[in-house]
Amino acid sequence: MKESKVKKEKQEKGSWVTYRPEIKIVDCSVRDGGLMNDHKFEDGFVKKVYDTCVSAGVDYMELGYKADKKIFSPTQYGKWKFCDEDTIRKVVGDNKTSLKLCVMADAERTDYHTDILPKSKSVLDCIRVATYIHQIPTAIDMVKDAHNKGYETTLNLMAISIVQDRELDDALAALAKTPVGTIYLVDSFGALYSEQIKDLTLKYLKAMEGTGKQVGIHAHNNQQLAYANTIEAIICGANRIDATINGIGRGAGNCSLELIMGFLKNPKFQIRPVLECVQETFIPLQHQMEWGYNIPYMITGQLNLHPRAAIKIRASDKKDDYVSFYDQMIEEE
Amino acid sequence: MKESKVKKEKQEKGSWVTYRPEIKIVDCSVRDGGLMNDHKFEDGFVKKVYDTCVSAGVDYMELGYKADKKIFSPTQYGKWKFCDEDTIRKVVGDNKTSLKLCVMADAERTDYHTDILPKSKSVLDCIRVATYIHQIPTAIDMVKDAHNKGYETTLNLMAISIVQDRELDDALAALAKTPVGTIYLVDSFGALYSEQIKDLTLKYLKAMEGTGKQVGIHAHNNQQLAYANTIEAIICGANRIDATINGIGRGAGNCSLELIMGFLKNPKFQIRPVLECVQETFIPLQHQMEWGYNIPYMITGQLNLHPRAAIKIRASDKKDDYVSFYDQMIEEE
Repeated sequence: MKESKVKKEKQEKGSWVTYRPEIKIVDCSVRDGGLMNDHKFEDGFVKKVYDTCVSAGVDYMELGYKADKKIFSPTQYGKWKFCDEDTIRKVVGDNKTSLKLCVMADAERTDYHTDILPKSKSVLDCIRVATYIHQIPTAIDMVKDAHNKGYETTLNLMAISIVQDRELDDALAALAKTPVGTIYLVDSFGALYSEQIKDLTLKYLKAMEGTGKQVGIHAHNNQQLAYANTIEAIICGANRIDATINGIGRGAGNCSLELIMGFLKNPKFQIRPVLECVQETFIPLQHQMEWGYNIPYMITGQLNLHPRAAIKIRASDKKDDYVSFYDQMIEEE
Repeated sequence: MKESKVKKEKQEKGSWVTYRPEIKIVDCSVRDGGLMNDHKFEDGFVKKVYDTCVSAGVDYMELGYKADKKIFSPTQYGKWKFCDEDTIRKVVGDNKTSLKLCVMADAERTDYHTDILPKSKSVLDCIRVATYIHQIPTAIDMVKDAHNKGYETTLNLMAISIVQDRELDDALAALAKTPVGTIYLVDSFGALYSEQIKDLTLKYLKAMEGTGKQVGIHAHNNQQLAYANTIEAIICGANRIDATINGIGRGAGNCSLELIMGFLKNPKFQIRPVLECVQETFIPLQHQMEWGYNIPYMITGQLNLHPRAAIKIRASDKKDDYVSFYDQMIEEE
């Protein structure tokens, strides 16, 4: 697959028979999937995903959040909402593999000074700071904190489809001056089309030019475009790719790991362990919880809305009442 | 949605708030869906799709095939495999609507001289000739026959992902000289990526330059790219768009009509009747027959193979045995 047609950065261009070694995959199955069950996955499930990532040559695995226990009760949420060091080590030990581990830290919902340990005391490799546009100052402080503690960092600027151009330009200029390693384009509502992904990826790359920072892509499948938009971002130069096994994730889910592995040609990526994991673990799990493309998600995606109303209707006895849902969404516009 | 960034032809460019009126939608639900049940749909189902297309502002509806009864037995296949004039009229009457009707005629499987009536005796508006690359001479004769009988025509060149460039160039040059109205890019195996769709659409457009012919796109969803690739073809200049309600179609199915209607901004297209039809007719139908994206189709798509092996395994008791299927496909490569 031709992994790059736009050569804005110094990076090597992939061709139909070569590949771009800079491209790294982040598996978000446990973190994004955890949004469906309040992060109450059993250790065996997390271990299975971990083993799969190791075998498949995935570069990073995201385990959950570092949520503030003063805001979120540990009696209400599962342990992968907090990702205490002990919780993680119980599954991965000292992680003597080439797979790097990361967690997400939400701006304004994380007691980062306390809960993010110095790197020397943690098996984690990377802190991913998630932020809305108005939280950027807090997010930058979190990036600096994690960087100073010795971690790789990413900044995931969410809900980009409702951010105005001027604010985005300001934010990117500010982020370019921070020590963050990767800036993510996040299509939280699954609302963006390929041309918008292209324009945004190029904008992010331009804003980071000369800083050595990478651009990442995190896509949702509300309009069945998560994989296609991920490819588009790669073609434009994004090198950090979020995906999940079988597309697991809240609502319409994410870009499937097995799909993106079919596109990338780096021989270190192995699709077979992913297929095995889908077959043995994710297909049975789908009998207990629903994720993936569905018409209510398509409707919120088309309208550039948060999928919460679609998630709600899919959990109700009106889950296939598309017309009422459409009428309701149009009325609220 | 920006419906065109490449302006190779004289056609108007769409913008984010305007639309390209030349874009026409062809609903293939009954024809492509019929490949799953040997075209044994009941009249009520076909009428429901017909009424939906009329209400939704769809431009064309494809009813089935004009198969040769000497080759395909009417006792084995349903009536929509043959689309006799009486069969069609029983559902659509004289079709006093703006919806145009079409059928598909396969090269070497159609007794076209006999079975395609003069336009004056038929409620059909358009004959879609489907052909593999080696059948082009027959297909051209079929196009001429239909054209001379008074029909609009399209030529659907199938399995393009395994056709060599030189042969394709020859075929396009030959087709440019025929009276055919539209040449279709058909990704039969759901194997093409957006960059290939772009290159091919531009190639088709260039070959047809100055002839007034349109280029069409017929995509399959094996890699969850049917909608994305349809958008890509539209952006490059394709104006004839095949889609099906709820993505119905053999195997991984087609580009969903409700998805593409969310992208196109022409106010004549109405998504609500399509949602109603999905809810009332297609969701119940999905309890009887399976279509849509699934991992075995992904595997054949990634390997650029006909989906027949995937269709077979999905109909067996090993339908979720992805690893064995993958091993088998790799071995056969």
